Amino acid sequence: MTPAPARYREAGVDISSKYEAVERATQAIRGSFTPGVVGDVGSFGGLFDLAKAGARDALLVASADGVGTKLEVAKRAGVYDTVGRDLVHHCIDDILVQGARPLFFMDYVAVGKMEPGMVSQLIRGCAEACRENGLALLGGETAEMPGLYVPGDFDLAGFIVGAVSREKLLDGSRVRPGQVLLGLRSSGLHTNGYSLARKILFDELGLALSDRPEGLEGVSVGEALLAVHRSYLRLLWPLLEGDRIAAMAHITGGGLVDNLPRVLNGCDAWIDRSTWEPPALFRFLCSRGRVGPDEAYQVFNMGIGMVLLVEPEQVDEVERHLRAAGEDVFRIGTLKRSTNAASSPSSRFITLIATSISS
Amino acid sequence: MTPAPARYREAGVDISSKYEAVERATQAIRGSFTPGVVGDVGSFGGLFDLAKAGARDALLVASADGVGTKLEVAKRAGVYDTVGRDLVHHCIDDILVQGARPLFFMDYVAVGKMEPGMVSQLIRGCAEACRENGLALLGGETAEMPGLYVPGDFDLAGFIVGAVSREKLLDGSRVRPGQVLLGLRSSGLHTNGYSLARKILFDELGLALSDRPEGLEGVSVGEALLAVHRSYLRLLWPLLEGDRIAAMAHITGGGLVDNLPRVLNGCDAWIDRSTWEPPALFRFLCSRGRVGPDEAYQVFNMGIGMVLLVEPEQVDEVERHLRAAGEDVFRIGTLKRSTNAASSPSSRFITLIATSISS
Repeated sequence: MTPAPARYREAGVDISSKYEAVERATQAIRGSFTPGVVGDVGSFGGLFDLAKAGARDALLVASADGVGTKLEVAKRAGVYDTVGRDLVHHCIDDILVQGARPLFFMDYVAVGKMEPGMVSQLIRGCAEACRENGLALLGGETAEMPGLYVPGDFDLAGFIVGAVSREKLLDGSRVRPGQVLLGLRSSGLHTNGYSLARKILFDELGLALSDRPEGLEGVSVGEALLAVHRSYLRLLWPLLEGDRIAAMAHITGGGLVDNLPRVLNGCDAWIDRSTWEPPALFRFLCSRGRVGPDEAYQVFNMGIGMVLLVEPEQVDEVERHLRAAGEDVFRIGTLKRSTNAASSPSSRFITLIATSISS
Repeated sequence: MTPAPARYREAGVDISSKYEAVERATQAIRGSFTPGVVGDVGSFGGLFDLAKAGARDALLVASADGVGTKLEVAKRAGVYDTVGRDLVHHCIDDILVQGARPLFFMDYVAVGKMEPGMVSQLIRGCAEACRENGLALLGGETAEMPGLYVPGDFDLAGFIVGAVSREKLLDGSRVRPGQVLLGLRSSGLHTNGYSLARKILFDELGLALSDRPEGLEGVSVGEALLAVHRSYLRLLWPLLEGDRIAAMAHITGGGLVDNLPRVLNGCDAWIDRSTWEPPALFRFLCSRGRVGPDEAYQVFNMGIGMVLLVEPEQVDEVERHLRAAGEDVFRIGTLKRSTNAASSPSSRFITLIATSISS
């Protein structure tokens, strides 16, 4: 390796630290490799063989995402190995709702100052989540950008590519009135609503990460906020293979209010909020942060991270499968023919049956 | 559209501004769509049909990249429509060196405060560069992250997927002693070395973007720094289809010194720096910034953005093709059998024949 250029180091960029960060994560990256990966870590672009991955005639499904200001909480806590998992799981869930299984992932890490320990933890978190979910961390970019980021600051984004066979694609066309909405638990905020949560918990209530306020039922603020975004892949894959799901909505930014309408195919969703109790963190944020119910269900997932649309005659069987896997499952509502004469794919809406949120 | 949640707005996140930014870029995004794209803007994940794109049995080649601190120059200049092009072109060149043609691209835009005008310009720049190069802007993520980025600050990253048929893959295996290295001009710094260039031009020399110092031959500092990274796709594609290129190196971060060795397949590259004159910007940075030649060729591309490895008996024909397209081309060196007995793929090195850089 050529020595790092001195003048470049003076300008705040240390190429050798970048190589060190990637090198420290190399073993974890290789550990995620699947039969589809061609070659090794470090070539210009990552090579992937669809035939070897059993996805020769599939459609590709791709998505990009970030972790949002959950990063700020991770930075505050000095915990760098969980946000990579958050990101990979978020990306997996984003394409899972179209029926796709993930093939490969790429990360983008931007830092103000290259700290090999921190950066390798971020990448390793991605790599380990990839391995556990059967996709490859095929490559990525680590950028040191003094001036744009201050030392200690960083951003993390990811890109995923998955595959779905044409006949298994979930594109909303199987959605019909009468179908049942099943809600699956989130592990916490997942990766959305952190700007508001941080404002309430840190700025307004003055809480510290280690505090365990009464409303959080024994959990610390830091533990509650850094709970890892769930991957629903392993739980739901057998149901997708068995054609038991008509559509799915990943509840991310915009909450139930903005995410569910994207798959309603002109129906109305009638959701009864009393069918599940939002976990302690959400009740705490709503009551102590004066967040009204309409707003809460648009900013936070309120305890439901994924919604499945299921034919009524298959609901019992689907629930049995989920419960056998140790999952809580909530019948949160049903689909009805739209009552809005002007309803079209672009004006689909969600109707929430108002119930008060207790805290 | 539901009104943006009030408490979330107070926390610095305005969901409706985000929708507005994407909406303003929608037409440009649609304009980039190719026959491979399934569906429209705004679904959960972007869908792509390889068969319709004529890439059914190809290997996929994927790459992630950012723009580096060229963003800081764009911000300083208030110019937001060129960095998207920089990013797309950089990504295209990164996979072109493996023989791949680009299929689709996804962007990640992170901002401190959502300014729909600025964000839509960033996305439109990506979309237009995609259209011009025949790939689709298949999706992306726009994240508003107050606290992590200050208002006015932003980051931009991208992810590209391309295709190459197995028999056209450039993996270094066709590289042999005796091949000629042809250098193609860069348009400027492309997307690398900006931290050092900014330090020299702004911090040390105190220049402004509008200044036209003597050494820059009539070009302003801003114009020189924001010159768009070239895409070599259209120029080189006929040569790749005609099997006229044994390997290519995209000269990015690390310069000729770090990028060329990645494709040398155990050979040494003997480069004669006197075969081309680094353009004015590079000479200015080296002389006024006291950057020695060894360092300069590792931080900057020094005027060569792409290097082609060509069989000696095909060099004349390749040069004719390039010159007919209006391209300057430089025979910058040749490959020789390695003189290092311990040479292996991991210890390949580059030997620069030292010549002084005049300024």
